[in-house]
Amino acid sequence: MSGEFERIARIAASLGPRARGLGDDCAIIPTGKGRLVVSTDASIEGTHFRLDWIDHREAGWRAAASALSDLAAEAATPAGVLAAVVVPAAAGDEEVVALMDGVGDAAAAVGAHVVGGDLSQGPSWAVTVTVLGWAQRPVTRAGARPGDGVWVTGTLGASRAALEAWKRGDQPDPAARAAFAHPVPRIGAGLRLADAGATALLDISDGLGGDAQHLADSSHVAIVLDLDAVPVSPACHEEARRLRISPQRFAADGGEDYELLVALPPSFDGNAARAFRRECRLALTRIGSVGTGSGLRASLAGREVRLSGYDHFR
Amino acid sequence: MSGEFERIARIAASLGPRARGLGDDCAIIPTGKGRLVVSTDASIEGTHFRLDWIDHREAGWRAAASALSDLAAEAATPAGVLAAVVVPAAAGDEEVVALMDGVGDAAAAVGAHVVGGDLSQGPSWAVTVTVLGWAQRPVTRAGARPGDGVWVTGTLGASRAALEAWKRGDQPDPAARAAFAHPVPRIGAGLRLADAGATALLDISDGLGGDAQHLADSSHVAIVLDLDAVPVSPACHEEARRLRISPQRFAADGGEDYELLVALPPSFDGNAARAFRRECRLALTRIGSVGTGSGLRASLAGREVRLSGYDHFR
Repeated sequence: MSGEFERIARIAASLGPRARGLGDDCAIIPTGKGRLVVSTDASIEGTHFRLDWIDHREAGWRAAASALSDLAAEAATPAGVLAAVVVPAAAGDEEVVALMDGVGDAAAAVGAHVVGGDLSQGPSWAVTVTVLGWAQRPVTRAGARPGDGVWVTGTLGASRAALEAWKRGDQPDPAARAAFAHPVPRIGAGLRLADAGATALLDISDGLGGDAQHLADSSHVAIVLDLDAVPVSPACHEEARRLRISPQRFAADGGEDYELLVALPPSFDGNAARAFRRECRLALTRIGSVGTGSGLRASLAGREVRLSGYDHFR
Repeated sequence: MSGEFERIARIAASLGPRARGLGDDCAIIPTGKGRLVVSTDASIEGTHFRLDWIDHREAGWRAAASALSDLAAEAATPAGVLAAVVVPAAAGDEEVVALMDGVGDAAAAVGAHVVGGDLSQGPSWAVTVTVLGWAQRPVTRAGARPGDGVWVTGTLGASRAALEAWKRGDQPDPAARAAFAHPVPRIGAGLRLADAGATALLDISDGLGGDAQHLADSSHVAIVLDLDAVPVSPACHEEARRLRISPQRFAADGGEDYELLVALPPSFDGNAARAFRRECRLALTRIGSVGTGSGLRASLAGREVRLSGYDHFR
């Protein structure tokens, strides 16, 4: 095993043009347009991923992509990524380099550079990714107004389908595995939705139920969801069947889809949605509405249902 | 044990005015003067601290102060602090709140706010602190020029003295314990040294030997240190005696003092140093010089000595 400084040199060499200005105490970031937006997210082996499920490179991609998803949810343009990596004593250099390779690819995929990080020894793998971006009009989760529509990008449930298969000891469906190992932060979609007048925006990391509840709480409104309208990933039908629940229910209770949940004003209509889909090459589906009052109500096949949020502590 | 969201609410309530705008996906930071400077640092239980040595509040302070020290070393003014905390399953809410209380105090002590964070479950305690600041003239470690003097703030060796006592199973000297548990990031001193024309600046986190080597490598110069001049903390005399090495050697091989190592032009003389000490109420001692060539040379009592850097991987 190499020492810390040789490892940093190897990582910098491997990252090549995907990194910028490593090796000082701090990263110095050029000022961009608008306000500075920043978020930090830990990915812990055993809590967020297992290395018998995904490899080191995928763990690095997933950690960076999930942090970058927070910038998408703020309608920010990514500028820099920092990764603090905790490495077990027995790990080899090539594993550290592979993990940072995944971080570098996820940053490069959204036009950002790895600008800094930290390397420590610890009991198991962990990577805490901090992302910085610039937003001309940051969209928080606090601005939804009664009368707005509630929409979601992409499809839901595939990431949970992979988890359920792994926990059972099976290999997941390839599309489900890809959703878990290689999530795509919806940066372009976030910017496009802000331009379209989004009043509140967040990414679905705690499950549709949990995040719709956050939206209701932060915006001081009621959210009413029609689960029949939820766009379900085909990859989760089989897993839902095994659990004897509907695919809609399975998808809505899942976590870590990293799609965007967005409130859009009543003027955002079917034509606007079609334009979004064409430009972003991404599904956008109306799944509910914003009302006065508070809390979350969801219905499926005409019946009210209770959704559970996804909480890593439970 | 509470869930993630209740814990975040408790932390936010406890932090009070020391935090700002928690609860969204991202922190939104007002633009300051100069360039954006950012750094991330992990503090891992068992690697960087032990909870039979210091308590949760001290662990939080120390983690944040060591990250803020990187801003001091760039001559940046702190703006925001983010903390990604990993909590063992058996931990209680009050321990998490105490740790974040220490983070909040360290931020408040330098005029910064806690602007975001993350809470995860993991095998042991860890806190990764990301700090953001603004620098009108960031000073890197790459600008030292032959002819410059090499200076250091404060005194060295106390943090190592505490570690040596704990490892032996003893209680450390109170001043040594305070140096380890409650380091003070040298923010004001960093700004003052930049104003005084500092050509290179870094904090001593890897020991004087390790960090002087970094300075030589980054600036493509030779560094010559006179260890007889090194300002040694009185708290390390006893520990040096036990190890049968000189206090200068003990202090220079120690780590995590978080004092500043700075290259200053020849025009920075004794009068300038006295003005610094008076204004910053902090020692500033010339311990060497910058020469042409490369590498680090150190002498003690007329003999050349080899210094070892402090590497958490070893």
